[in-house]
Parts: sequence; C-alpha cells; structure tokens
Amino acid sequence: MLTLTTDFGTGDYYVGAMKGVALGIAPDARLIDISHQIPPQDVLAAAFVLRHAAREFPPGTVHLAVVDPGVGTARRPIAVAAADQLWIGPDNGLFSFVLNDARVHHIANKALYNSRPSRTFHGRDIFAPIAAHLCTGLDLAAVGPPVYDPVVLPEITAQKSAQRIAGRIIHIDHFGNLVTNIAAADIEPWGTAVNIRLGSHALAGLSRTYGDVAEDAPLALIGSVELLEISVNGGSAAQRFGLDRRDPIIVEPTTER
Amino acid sequence: MLTLTTDFGTGDYYVGAMKGVALGIAPDARLIDISHQIPPQDVLAAAFVLRHAAREFPPGTVHLAVVDPGVGTARRPIAVAAADQLWIGPDNGLFSFVLNDARVHHIANKALYNSRPSRTFHGRDIFAPIAAHLCTGLDLAAVGPPVYDPVVLPEITAQKSAQRIAGRIIHIDHFGNLVTNIAAADIEPWGTAVNIRLGSHALAGLSRTYGDVAEDAPLALIGSVELLEISVNGGSAAQRFGLDRRDPIIVEPTTER
Amino acid sequence: MLTLTTDFGTGDYYVGAMKGVALGIAPDARLIDISHQIPPQDVLAAAFVLRHAAREFPPGTVHLAVVDPGVGTARRPIAVAAADQLWIGPDNGLFSFVLNDARVHHIANKALYNSRPSRTFHGRDIFAPIAAHLCTGLDLAAVGPPVYDPVVLPEITAQKSAQRIAGRIIHIDHFGNLVTNIAAADIEPWGTAVNIRLGSHALAGLSRTYGDVAEDAPLALIGSVELLEISVNGGSAAQRFGLDRRDPIIVEPTTER
Repeated sequence: MLTLTTDFGTGDYYVGAMKGVALGIAPDARLIDISHQIPPQDVLAAAFVLRHAAREFPPGTVHLAVVDPGVGTARRPIAVAAADQLWIGPDNGLFSFVLNDARVHHIANKALYNSRPSRTFHGRDIFAPIAAHLCTGLDLAAVGPPVYDPVVLPEITAQKSAQRIAGRIIHIDHFGNLVTNIAAADIEPWGTAVNIRLGSHALAGLSRTYGDVAEDAPLALIGSVELLEISVNGGSAAQRFGLDRRDPIIVEPTTER
Repeated sequence: MLTLTTDFGTGDYYVGAMKGVALGIAPDARLIDISHQIPPQDVLAAAFVLRHAAREFPPGTVHLAVVDPGVGTARRPIAVAAADQLWIGPDNGLFSFVLNDARVHHIANKALYNSRPSRTFHGRDIFAPIAAHLCTGLDLAAVGPPVYDPVVLPEITAQKSAQRIAGRIIHIDHFGNLVTNIAAADIEPWGTAVNIRLGSHALAGLSRTYGDVAEDAPLALIGSVELLEISVNGGSAAQRFGLDRRDPIIVEPTTER
Repeated sequence: MLTLTTDFGTGDYYVGAMKGVALGIAPDARLIDISHQIPPQDVLAAAFVLRHAAREFPPGTVHLAVVDPGVGTARRPIAVAAADQLWIGPDNGLFSFVLNDARVHHIANKALYNSRPSRTFHGRDIFAPIAAHLCTGLDLAAVGPPVYDPVVLPEITAQKSAQRIAGRIIHIDHFGNLVTNIAAADIEPWGTAVNIRLGSHALAGLSRTYGDVAEDAPLALIGSVELLEISVNGGSAAQRFGLDRRDPIIVEPTTER
C-alpha cells in the first residue's frame, strides 16, 4: 500500500507521472491519494494532513510525500521508519510528527533512482522509485546511510506553562475550521473552564460538537484528532476571525475573581 | 467495490483517514472516488451526483456518502439496500433518489464503530467502518433496527399539472450547465413545442446537443441523465442567467394563438 | 491499466459514471486518474499533460481522454496505438504528441457502445466502454476502420531557424511555471548563451534549478520533460509576467557586439 501527499494539484502531469513510475517498479502496489491540494510549499500543512490520515492505515503502509520548496538544492532526500510505517520525501520537516521515535536514512543510493534524474522533479525521479522499491520489500538501510539530525518543525507543539498554553493555527480545513497545535491532553486538567484568545477575539469554554451552539455562532472544541479547533457552526471560522495559518492562539484557565 | 462521495474537499486528512479505516477492515475492497467536491453541506447536490454515478456501477457496489451538516446531533446514521446496491451515510436525504423501493436500517450497533468515536467525524468513526464491514459481506440487518421514515428531500421531483411543470435547478455542473429536476418523460407528450422560463428569461423549444445552436447561444436540452438542462454552447449558463441551485424553472407547452 | 484524463472536474457524476461503466466491462482493470482539472475545453493542455504522464506508464497501458468541445457534432471518436500504449478519445488533437508514428482507428462499431448513447456524454457512452474493451484484450481494428488524417495541433512544436526559435506557452502549471513548446535539443547548440523574450520582458541565460537565483527572482530552465520553462523562484511566473497559454516566447543566441 502506497499513499501520496503533495502540493502538486491535479491539473498537471506530475501526480500521474509519479504513479506511472511507481507502478512500473511495484505493479501490485495499491495507490491511495491522501492529498495533492496541500497549499503550495506549506510543509507544516502537509506534515499535519499526512500524519492524521496515515494513522488510520495498516502497519507497513508506505507514505510518499513531496512538498519540496528546496528541490534541486542541498536538502537531503530521506526515508523514515516510524509508527510501523515507512515515509519517503525531502528532509524539510514533512515527517516532524513521527520523528521522535524513528529510524531515518539518507536516500543516496543512485542505483535506485530513475536514470538521469532531473533537477526540478525529484518526486518522479527519486522519491517515487524509492517508495516503490520499499513497497516491494527493499530494506530501508539499502537506500543510504543513517541520518541522526532530521529537520523537525518547531510549530508542531505548543508552549505550555502552568497557567497558559501558547499555540498556533497549524491547519485550516476545507470548512474554514482552525486546527491548532494545542493538544487535548494539555487542556484537560482545566476541564472546559478555559478562555481562548485569538487575535482580538476571545471564546469562553469548550463545546462538544457544532450543534451545541446556535447556527452561525463560533465555538472551540476538541476536534477529531484530539487537538483544539476553533469553528463556526455552519460557517467558516477562518473568514469570521480573519485568521491565517501560523497565527497565535492562547488558552488560559478561567480565573475566579 | 466501495465508492466515496463527500463535501470534504481533498486538502485535508478526512478522505485519507476514511480510506485507511476502510482498508483496515476490508483490505481487498476497491475504492473509487465519486466526488469530494460537493458544495459544502449541499445534501441535494450530493444526492444527485451520487445517484447518477452509482447507476453505472455493478450490483453489490457499496456507496459511502458523507455530507453531514448535522454531525454530532440526533440525526440517524443509516444503511440502505436499494437498486441492487448498498448506501451508507446520514439520514438527511442523501439517498432520496433511491428510497422509493428500499430497505433502510438505523446504524446502531456500536460494536461495529471505531472504538471511541469522535463527535465531529462520523465519516471516519462510524460510516467508513460500517461500509467496509458491508463490503466484506456483513448482513445489512446486523447494523441495527429497520427505519420506516427515512428523510426524503422534496426537491427531487418537479410539480406537474396538465399544462405546466414547475421545477427547480438541482445541480450546476463544472461547465455551468443548469440541471433541473424536470424529467424528460414528463415533457415528452409536448415534444419540443415547449417554452421554458427561468427568472426573467425564456427559451423556446428543445435542442438535441450543444452544437445545434450558435457559439455562445443558450439552449435547453434533455441531458445525459434524462433531465432537462439549460446550457450555453461553449459557455456557462449559470453565469449567463445569474441563476443558482434551487432557483425555479417553468416548462409549458407552446400555445397556439 | 486504464488512465483517465478529462476537463470534467471532480464535482459532478461524470468521472464516477465513466469509472462505473469501465469497471462493469473490465472488472479487473486498474483505474488511475491523470487529471480531471484540465482547463475547460483546452485540448492542448490535455494533450500535454497526458503525454508527459503517460510516458512513465508501462507498455500496454490504455489512456482514456475526454476533452471534447465538439461532443455531439461530426468530430470522430478514435482509438490510437502509439508509443506501445493505447489512446482513446475524440479526434481533435488530444493525441497530437504521439501521432507521428501511430495506428489510428475510427470508433464506429456501435455494438461496443453503451446501449442508447446520449448526445452530450460520449465519455460515458462511447469512450469508456471502448477503452474498457481494449483493456480486456479487444483488437484495435475491431473498433472501426483506419483513419489516415487525424487532427494534429500545430502548437505542439516551435518554429526553428538558424538564429531564432519562435515558440509558445503550451501549459501553465499549478505553481505558475510557464511551460513552452521549445525543446531542449533545439537550444542545446547555443548552450546557455541565449536571450529569451516574453511579451515586453527578457531573460538572459539558462539556470539549472530554482535555487540558482534569488528568492522571488525569475529564471529560465530546461524543465523535467526537456522543454524550456519560465519560472520564479518561490513564486508564480504566470502572475509575474501576466502571460497566458498560447502567448509567444522567442529564444535567440546571445550575439557578440
């Protein structure tokens, strides 16, 4: 099983070419698209989307991810074993969410590349062939030497103190829901007695689902991947609050007066 | 064979997560995307798109559809046997086009859910597991008790009288064609001697195909699913007429004077 | 293996219906989407995208392509054997890039169509059934008589003279890169000592990859399919230069003064 996650869109030959290469090497591989609509060059959004789709896939699944602003420069191509699955892509933070217990290898074995790789399309010429070879049982260590310092994005976790969590928006979904990097487990000690500040706005308390508030009213809730999300019932929180990816969100326990 | 129809878009982890869950339960299922670009929360558009894609699929195909503005509220999850196929999703009218001869069951057997279902993502936690279990041969009645009053959208059929059909636009396609709920069979007695009124505009007669009229001219025709459609040859009827989904369309026989 | 390339978008029943028809005839066929986001009715863009995805697929792959502004008129449906693969679609130039050494047949054997084909959706009623039958081993000649004059788009090649290549933009990709019809092989005699004129702008020399120039600076390079491309490092060349598909691009060797 081979999944694909890119910022290539679906109007070009890029995704099709990667699939053709993969099927040439691993004819029996099942190909599953996670997303090709990652915002262009947004490594953090790709890391988030891939992580939370991947966790539902069986052990042994191979994830091919190409969001690669540094293509053709010195950034390393890597292959990662983590969370009982394999992850192939550029070393730019794409796999940040699974790197805390991972084996990482630098893809350096040129015998596994497409012949004559281009300088601008490593998805087709390097990453797809490697991912397909791993699907057919190639040993991870065969791709190249170990890497001990893979890039990790700092935004994947929020800053916590006893009376305050300072987080960020890490993804805005199709419905305009604002997904933060603030984990349910970190809010839990305070229950629902929290104040949430975003820009010049504030929300009090946590709801359980959209229908808990009136149509068109904003709410904060723990979303389906156990992170704090800001939503508007039947509307777009991104539009309502005029916020964007990476904007800060503060959570504090409600204080008695 | 398992098809998927949602309003999730393809920029999030939602569709990927549903596929991962389904493949974990039914590893040999073939997954076919019908659409993930249904306009957000437009149950009628989803019902229409799914119906007319589904009719081309083999008997026994399982259709998983999640356009679910009421997620987390009291609306029932249902599984339906109709038209020799199975249909899984929320009971909000999504399956209106096939409910006139159907067996409907309330999905209530929590043993078939994901463990610890979330309140905001039943696609992953309830509908995908149920659909996958049905793919592997689970009996429909095992999902829960029968339902005798599933929701049917009133807009699926037009109002007919001897001298007039009062219908609506139920879908606007990628090219701006306006698809109505007015059936070819209902117009047939009048042949092509009809007047069609839409907003402040009128069209006389029916064409057979786009090329029957001049470039950029409007036309009415019986489309590829035997419904009345309004088009512009080489252009967008939605833009030309400034009309939207659910706007009314009137068809009357041409009267002699 | 059956690939699909259309301008249908993914919000309608069109792609799903084609897949259902194909799987009804060829249940074991693997379906791979190349693109359904071709700009509406842009035959040249479709020809380009399909060509450069297809070249990575194994011999024997069947490519189903439907970008068909002339549906319902006299334009012929064709099936083509070229480049060790099969290509099915309307005879409007979609297969221009592979027609220089091809066998072409007119799809005229109505016994292979869907019963009662519509006038507006030949993708479902003619092309998908033919493609699926070819997947199951139908002989190409069984679809109908040979065609000796298939439509070829003139824009697929640039005009060359000793001191000048006059080409065009034939595709704008998801990142705003401008792909031209000017082949690397035609520039090669001049090395990188070239001037490139596009609209009122000019670029000197060729870069090797995006990172060769400063962030946000424009560059010309030989792209991943051996064609001249104009890019902006980290940005959109289409926006920067205000150019569109089919706009002219001139390449000349740098002259000494």
